[in-house]
Amino acid sequence: MTEIRRATPEEWEEIWPIFQAVVASGDTYAYPPDIGKEEAFTAWFNPISTVFAVYLDGAIVGTYILRPNMPGQGSHVANASFMVNPDQQGRGLGRAMCTHSLAEAKKAGYKAMQFNLVVSTNKAALGLWEKLGFSVVGVLPKAFKHQRLGLVDALIMHQFLD
Amino acid sequence: MTEIRRATPEEWEEIWPIFQAVVASGDTYAYPPDIGKEEAFTAWFNPISTVFAVYLDGAIVGTYILRPNMPGQGSHVANASFMVNPDQQGRGLGRAMCTHSLAEAKKAGYKAMQFNLVVSTNKAALGLWEKLGFSVVGVLPKAFKHQRLGLVDALIMHQFLD
Repeated sequence: MTEIRRATPEEWEEIWPIFQAVVASGDTYAYPPDIGKEEAFTAWFNPISTVFAVYLDGAIVGTYILRPNMPGQGSHVANASFMVNPDQQGRGLGRAMCTHSLAEAKKAGYKAMQFNLVVSTNKAALGLWEKLGFSVVGVLPKAFKHQRLGLVDALIMHQFLD
Repeated sequence: MTEIRRATPEEWEEIWPIFQAVVASGDTYAYPPDIGKEEAFTAWFNPISTVFAVYLDGAIVGTYILRPNMPGQGSHVANASFMVNPDQQGRGLGRAMCTHSLAEAKKAGYKAMQFNLVVSTNKAALGLWEKLGFSVVGVLPKAFKHQRLGLVDALIMHQFLD
């Protein structure tokens, strides 16, 4: 049974191995692949972010953060980031978390959700976000340094929440 | 005589009135128009940013920050933000600072510069950035809450540095 709920900073011990495994590949996230545990904690459990986790039989198998994409006059647009334990991919956890995040964002009063850097070669994510209602609203040329492929484009994706 | 050079945190006393005046209008920056002095300091003199100021006869009349737009695998793209004392507009200070920032970014090894939120109704800035080599690479629908006009589009602008 899976369940998605708010995660606490105390759960970082369980979340960190997922974070580390996801960024180590250097193909989806703009964090340094060799980021340290403390720096990663600060990035994920940021004061402006709400952290959620997906639990499978009580163990954390994925996590996401929800936050305003910009302060002040841009704070009505949400941003979210998702990480799934690489061992648990293909089970619909990314889809479940994204669907959850859209509902949470709407509930929190956000008017839209924006992803700032979807790596263009990450076809699985791109296809999923499109299925879930996101559109590409910008292409950032060579904005991502892919660990295997070198500089590749990144996409900005967006959807309104009402 | 104008001169552009690195600014120090001690110069915040001189920079803050400019910051405050620029964001108070709520028409160009995604900071809260009523942001406090300390919060603004933290935003401008952020550990990841390098702060510059433009001095006219020794007094600060404008300021800009230069920083990586993303961490890790996105850190080869620079981001910059510019503020000119509203009393000193129309004297080419924005152009001088942007030209300076492009040279500084290149010197620091950045491969491109990206602006994440150019308010679409800010035609002066938009025209200037285009003249200085930036192109629109994305349109964020209703991403900016303009204090007078309500929700308006924001643009993502980009240029390569080599």
